[in-house]
Amino acid sequence: MSGSVGIVSAQRATFEEPLNFSCGKVLPRYELMYETYGTLNADKSNAILVCHALSGHHHVAGSYADDEKNIGWWDNMIGPGKPVDTNKFFVIGLNNLGGCHGSTGPSSIDPVTGKQYGSSFPMVTVEDWVHSQARLADLLGIHRFAAIIGGSLGGMQAMQWAITYPDRVRNVLAIATAPHLTTENIAFNDVARNAILTDPDFHNGDFYQHGVVPTRGLRLARMLGHITYLSDDAMAGKFGRGLRSGEYKYGYDIEFEVESYLRYQGDKFAAYFDANTYLLMTKALDYFDPAQHTEHNLARAFSNVQANYLVVSFSSDWRFSPDRSREIVKALLHNKRNVSYAEVTSQHGHDSFLMQDEQYFAVMRNYLERVAVEVQV
Amino acid sequence: MSGSVGIVSAQRATFEEPLNFSCGKVLPRYELMYETYGTLNADKSNAILVCHALSGHHHVAGSYADDEKNIGWWDNMIGPGKPVDTNKFFVIGLNNLGGCHGSTGPSSIDPVTGKQYGSSFPMVTVEDWVHSQARLADLLGIHRFAAIIGGSLGGMQAMQWAITYPDRVRNVLAIATAPHLTTENIAFNDVARNAILTDPDFHNGDFYQHGVVPTRGLRLARMLGHITYLSDDAMAGKFGRGLRSGEYKYGYDIEFEVESYLRYQGDKFAAYFDANTYLLMTKALDYFDPAQHTEHNLARAFSNVQANYLVVSFSSDWRFSPDRSREIVKALLHNKRNVSYAEVTSQHGHDSFLMQDEQYFAVMRNYLERVAVEVQV
Repeated sequence: MSGSVGIVSAQRATFEEPLNFSCGKVLPRYELMYETYGTLNADKSNAILVCHALSGHHHVAGSYADDEKNIGWWDNMIGPGKPVDTNKFFVIGLNNLGGCHGSTGPSSIDPVTGKQYGSSFPMVTVEDWVHSQARLADLLGIHRFAAIIGGSLGGMQAMQWAITYPDRVRNVLAIATAPHLTTENIAFNDVARNAILTDPDFHNGDFYQHGVVPTRGLRLARMLGHITYLSDDAMAGKFGRGLRSGEYKYGYDIEFEVESYLRYQGDKFAAYFDANTYLLMTKALDYFDPAQHTEHNLARAFSNVQANYLVVSFSSDWRFSPDRSREIVKALLHNKRNVSYAEVTSQHGHDSFLMQDEQYFAVMRNYLERVAVEVQV
Repeated sequence: MSGSVGIVSAQRATFEEPLNFSCGKVLPRYELMYETYGTLNADKSNAILVCHALSGHHHVAGSYADDEKNIGWWDNMIGPGKPVDTNKFFVIGLNNLGGCHGSTGPSSIDPVTGKQYGSSFPMVTVEDWVHSQARLADLLGIHRFAAIIGGSLGGMQAMQWAITYPDRVRNVLAIATAPHLTTENIAFNDVARNAILTDPDFHNGDFYQHGVVPTRGLRLARMLGHITYLSDDAMAGKFGRGLRSGEYKYGYDIEFEVESYLRYQGDKFAAYFDANTYLLMTKALDYFDPAQHTEHNLARAFSNVQANYLVVSFSSDWRFSPDRSREIVKALLHNKRNVSYAEVTSQHGHDSFLMQDEQYFAVMRNYLERVAVEVQV
C-alpha cells in the first residue's frame, strides 16, 4: 500500500552565521525553505535529504491545505509505502540557496541595500549548497544522513556531500547525473544563458528595479532545455510531425504540435521562474567537477568517500548518458566502495528520473529497503 | 593532381516570368546569383548542380579577383582533379531564392513598394526552389543534369529534383540528409526561430525600415545551430572543459573555451546573415516531407524517380543520422533504383559533409568517375 504524505507545510530556517561562497563573496545571513515528511526517529538515523535539480524546490511530496492541486515534484517516489518510504524514513526537501521559491536568492531583499540582490547575489556552486545544507542538517539535529538522494544537478549535490562530509552520509543515490558536464552540455547552457543575458529586459540582472522580467530569454532557455530533457524518440513518439491544424500554414505561428508544446512550456516557466536563479543553476552545473582538484582523476576525487552508492542511469538520456554514470561507478569501485548500478531502459530521456517506471522504482525501493535505521548508538 | 578552379566571378540571372510558391504567393520576377566552374560540353551532358544548405550560397569554389581570401564553401570538393572534377564536369552553384547573397530575398527591394520585402516575402519550400532552379537550368540550356549534389538541406533539394523533374537528373548525390526532419530537429529550429521572432529588433520581419537588425536573436540561433552541427565527441575533443583563463571567474563572461567558440560563431554570423532568410531556410527544412502526399510512404513518394543515387551519411551526425539516410536507401531500393550507400566513420557530426575526409572523398570521386558524359545524342 502506498499513498501520499498528505497535507504538508513549508518551513523557513534562518541562519545568522555568515556563509562564504566559492566565488569569494559572503552572505551574512540566509534563509532556506524546507519541508519534511515522516518522523525523525529517536537516534536520528533515518533522515534522507532530497536535493533538487535546476528548476526544483522544497515542495517534494504531498500537497498544501490551501492549494491541494500543488503536488510535490517527486510525489510519485516519496510517501508511505513508496520507494522512499516515509513510514521508515524522515525525508527533507529544501529550496537551494539562490533559488526562487522562498530561500534566499537573487530576488530576495538584500538587508544592506533594501533592494533585491539581483546581480550582486553570489555565484553559487554545488560545494556552497552542500555547506548551506549541512547547517540545515545541524539545525534539525541530524549528524548523519541515512541517504542523500538527487537526480541530475541534485545527484551532483549528493555526490559532493559524500566528498565534503564523508562521515555525514551513509548512502548516496545518484540518479541521471554525471561527474561533470560534457562540453556539449556547457554549450547548451551557454546558449540558454545568452538568451537571458541579451534580453533587453534583463538589465544586467537588476531587472527587478526596472519593473520588468526578461521573459523572452527565460522562455527560450526553457524551450531549449526541454529538448535536451527529452529523447529524440520520446519527442517523435509524442508529437511526430503532427500539425496543429492538419496542414501547413506557411507562417511563423505554431504549426507543428511540438512547437505548441515547447512554447507552452516556455511561457509557463517564464511566468514564474526567476531569470537570475536560472543563470546561477546552470553555472553551478557547469562548475561542478570534483576531479578538477585531482588532475582530472575522479577516483582520487572520491578517495575519502565512505558512503555506499546507488547509481542509476537511463538508456535514452543523452544529456547525462549512462556512460557518465559508469564513470562514477568505476571511480567508486577503484576506491573499493559498495556500489550498485542500474541502467534503466526508458524512452523518456533525461526526464526519466522524474517518471514512474517499474524497473526504476523497484531499484530504488530495493536499495532503500536494505538501508538500516536505528542501528547506531 | 587537384587544384582550385581559380578566380571566379558571380553572375546574375533574371527571370521575368511569375513564380508561384507553395504558400500561394507569387513573385512576378526574381533574380538568382550563380557561379559556374568548368566547361559545358557540346551535348550539355556534363552539368552538375550544387544545392546549398541553410547558410550557403552561390560561391561554392574558387575565389574572387578582388577578394582572394574569399574561398568557396565547398572548394575542397570541387575543382580540377577533385572529387567533383571540373576537368570533366560543368558545375553550377547558386544562391537560393529567399537567400541573402544576391538572389531575390527578404532583404531585396520589392519593385511594387520600393521597400525591402521583409515580412511580405513568400515562405519558400524545397519544391519552390527546385522550380526556380529549373528555370536557371533552362537559361543555361541544360535539360538534363549529369548530377545534382547537396548536403543537408541541399540534399533535400537534390532529392526533390528527382521527384519533380525525373527526366532532368541522371544522378542524385544526397549527403548527410533525411527524407524529413525529426521532431527534435523541428524543435531546435523552433527555438532558433523564436530567438529571432522575439528579438525586439525584429519588428515582425520589417526591421530594415527601422534601421536595426535582430542581432541578438540571430546570434542565439547560430550558437544553437552550431551545437547541433557538431558531435558531442567533436566538441569534447576540440574544447573539453578548457577554461579561457585557466580558472573559474564566477561571472557570465566567457569562461569555458566552448563558450568563446560559440559566441564568436554567433557574432560572426549575426553580422552578415539576414534574419528573414534564416527563418525561411529553417521553415523549408521543416516543411520538406515528400511522403506527406503519399500517406507517409516514402517508397511511393519516390515511385517516379529515375535517377541513380549516391547516399552518404556520417557516423557521428546526430542531426541527420545514418538511420535517416537508410530510410532513403530503402525507399529507393523498393523502387528498384540503383543506389550506392556509404556510411562514413567521422567524428565531426553533421559538419562532416563539409570536411575533407579520405573515405568520404573517395566515395564521391569513385561515384562521379563512373558518371558518363557525352553519351547522349
